[in-house]
Amino acid sequence: MPQRRAYLNITPQVEEFVRESGIEHGLCLVNPMHITAAVYVNDDERGLIQDYDEWLERLAPHEPVSQYRHNNGEDNADAHLKRQLMAHQVVLAITDGRLDLGPWEQVFYAEFDGQRRKRVLVKAIGE
Amino acid sequence: MPQRRAYLNITPQVEEFVRESGIEHGLCLVNPMHITAAVYVNDDERGLIQDYDEWLERLAPHEPVSQYRHNNGEDNADAHLKRQLMAHQVVLAITDGRLDLGPWEQVFYAEFDGQRRKRVLVKAIGE
Amino acid sequence: MPQRRAYLNITPQVEEFVRESGIEHGLCLVNPMHITAAVYVNDDERGLIQDYDEWLERLAPHEPVSQYRHNNGEDNADAHLKRQLMAHQVVLAITDGRLDLGPWEQVFYAEFDGQRRKRVLVKAIGE
Repeated sequence: MPQRRAYLNITPQVEEFVRESGIEHGLCLVNPMHITAAVYVNDDERGLIQDYDEWLERLAPHEPVSQYRHNNGEDNADAHLKRQLMAHQVVLAITDGRLDLGPWEQVFYAEFDGQRRKRVLVKAIGE
Repeated sequence: MPQRRAYLNITPQVEEFVRESGIEHGLCLVNPMHITAAVYVNDDERGLIQDYDEWLERLAPHEPVSQYRHNNGEDNADAHLKRQLMAHQVVLAITDGRLDLGPWEQVFYAEFDGQRRKRVLVKAIGE
Repeated sequence: MPQRRAYLNITPQVEEFVRESGIEHGLCLVNPMHITAAVYVNDDERGLIQDYDEWLERLAPHEPVSQYRHNNGEDNADAHLKRQLMAHQVVLAITDGRLDLGPWEQVFYAEFDGQRRKRVLVKAIGE
């Protein structure tokens, strides 16, 4: 991921996972395995994503990096804060073998400290 | 819902759903299907609900609507932000066929862009 | 808990619970039963914990207590707000009988209105 912050719609990958799991009725956890990232559900609308990005930067600014004690050899303390604001993980319902999403619900992976390879854990249970 | 923002205690409806599910031991997801709303757990105390409302308005103000890029024909960008602050969804434990809530835990549906019909998804799994 | 706010790494206790449950593959909810506390996942790094504490105090200050309507005989309204910012609860994956955590993921109990005995609900389902 070249830029520091990015917002990726991962709904197709989660749907594919659910299809392959064969689960008809259950719950699906989608959780970033990195602690400077969040998985959240909202609209895939370019303006809104920019609004989120500016708002997160206002409530948990990256600069000056020296304002954070964690930034002792690091510069990503703000990313740990931003990810908590976005609530970090989601649980999705599976009904009739598919993600049971509202009309505008899309699953996003939001990275706040990019330039590293990142992983998402998806875990579904049910029958 | 006549007003723009409202906070509804939906604990009785979720409890009824759990009772009808027949599940004795499991987990129950409560998730708004609309992306300008949140489901959260906290106290049913009128002063606190007003405190939440004023605090959310301070951290993610509705006005001026032109400050948000999403508000291009819309005016609800702030509602998308507020719902993330409240963490948007909850998972509840089911024990002995009932919601396993702490003494003051109540389940709320918080609407931040009202005047439309809204739906909540409740999904329980277990045995 | 002597101080008003505290951050406890409870990962060992949750891991012990999962081991004793005998579940090999499932989901585990970790939820504070008190509504002025949060359970969250992030790094066990002293500087970061101080950053969280100062940041939460900036976004939802304790003083002046009179700014909150809930503080009518209480003084803990800010704790109800802080816990929502930290997203209040987590769901963890269980794989091969163990918590399926990323390399830096640790489970914390964050208390924002201490001096009382607090309880955490841990509920695992799966097989």
